[in-house]
Amino acid sequence: MPSRAEAVPSFLWVEALPAAGRRLALGAENSHYLSRVCRARPGGQVTLTDGRGGLARARLVEVGARTVAEVEAVEWAQALRRATLLCGAPEGERADWMVEKLAELGIGVLQPIECQRATWTRWESKLRRWRRLATAALRQSHRRFLLEIRPPATLCAAVAALSEGSRRLVADAGGEPAARVRVPGDGDSVGAIGPAAGLIEAERASLVAAGFEPIALADGRLRTETAAIAWAVWWAAGG
Amino acid sequence: MPSRAEAVPSFLWVEALPAAGRRLALGAENSHYLSRVCRARPGGQVTLTDGRGGLARARLVEVGARTVAEVEAVEWAQALRRATLLCGAPEGERADWMVEKLAELGIGVLQPIECQRATWTRWESKLRRWRRLATAALRQSHRRFLLEIRPPATLCAAVAALSEGSRRLVADAGGEPAARVRVPGDGDSVGAIGPAAGLIEAERASLVAAGFEPIALADGRLRTETAAIAWAVWWAAGG
Repeated sequence: MPSRAEAVPSFLWVEALPAAGRRLALGAENSHYLSRVCRARPGGQVTLTDGRGGLARARLVEVGARTVAEVEAVEWAQALRRATLLCGAPEGERADWMVEKLAELGIGVLQPIECQRATWTRWESKLRRWRRLATAALRQSHRRFLLEIRPPATLCAAVAALSEGSRRLVADAGGEPAARVRVPGDGDSVGAIGPAAGLIEAERASLVAAGFEPIALADGRLRTETAAIAWAVWWAAGG
Repeated sequence: MPSRAEAVPSFLWVEALPAAGRRLALGAENSHYLSRVCRARPGGQVTLTDGRGGLARARLVEVGARTVAEVEAVEWAQALRRATLLCGAPEGERADWMVEKLAELGIGVLQPIECQRATWTRWESKLRRWRRLATAALRQSHRRFLLEIRPPATLCAAVAALSEGSRRLVADAGGEPAARVRVPGDGDSVGAIGPAAGLIEAERASLVAAGFEPIALADGRLRTETAAIAWAVWWAAGG
């Protein structure tokens, strides 16, 4: 039974897009995906993105361990809505699927934050895995912007790096119910989510002082990764 | 460093609540949780729920492999807002965390549906695991209503079992953007989510004929389990 997914060309991330008429090797992961998962053949069409707004229509020239595509046309777009999520450490390996879901929902930047009650551990190896998960999610959801995952930073540094004029919200069970908060339109939005054990009061106060509005994403207590996804869903609904 | 979670009594699910003044054995899972995870002691307070609106304040009498509590007071509440999710099969083991998140977000009933393009396989053993996950999520999120997980049903049977007058929505990338759809207030709401490969047109048409409004939960393609969570977040925002 053909699925809807098979009716459209495969959608792939590449490091950089060449100009129309040029060829490029698609790398090991894309080659495996096209030859083994999609069973693509030379002559088949694919869509390539650089994850920064560039989108290319391309045709497969070779398919196998080394898959090569020839670019037919390239176009560029800028993101009108951009979302950054500052996020404390969830428990265990729960960040894995959080990353996948944030990428699927179109979040632009994930900035892990170090909080008083939780530290991101062994993040160098996790960062590599998360970036692979984000690339796979882009492929799945046909997004032209790749989730950027930054190394952990302190809350102060993360807030200082935010663009001025960005809409800022912090997940807080005592905040305004999400249904009553206007969903951000164009421009930069920032969500802040505490770690599994919560933000300490001084951290929460520093966010409020930096312009973060408290928002209640549900009527119960949410785990860190659930609150992060809930914020992303809430933001994505405005797209 | 004490977390906020430690400041409040443990919140536990039990099959049935006895009257005030009576004692009950809390079962193996709760006993393990209290004695090993929380390191609770006799005299400590706990909150018990039957997952159907009943809530009891109780005090621990014995703590160990067999933990016993004495109920001090019981109160009952009815759910004013109830959500049912009809959901096609996601890929692989992705239903596991979907169940956990739906329970955290306060969904009332998960009704797996058999669709033309996907069947729920080996669900008898999964059902047991999902019910354990739902109970753990209730404990975590302090909910007095337990997510009820039903055995898979056909789409027809699932729709026929819905209460009349329920608000009905089907996740559909071509539907009305979620931010423009009024979030349901009190009463019964129903979401329908297609399986990984999507609903076939006849299934979609039958849902629309049964009063399901198409709703676009994000601007991209979402996996089944992500769409289910997105619907739940959207619904939960109205609480």
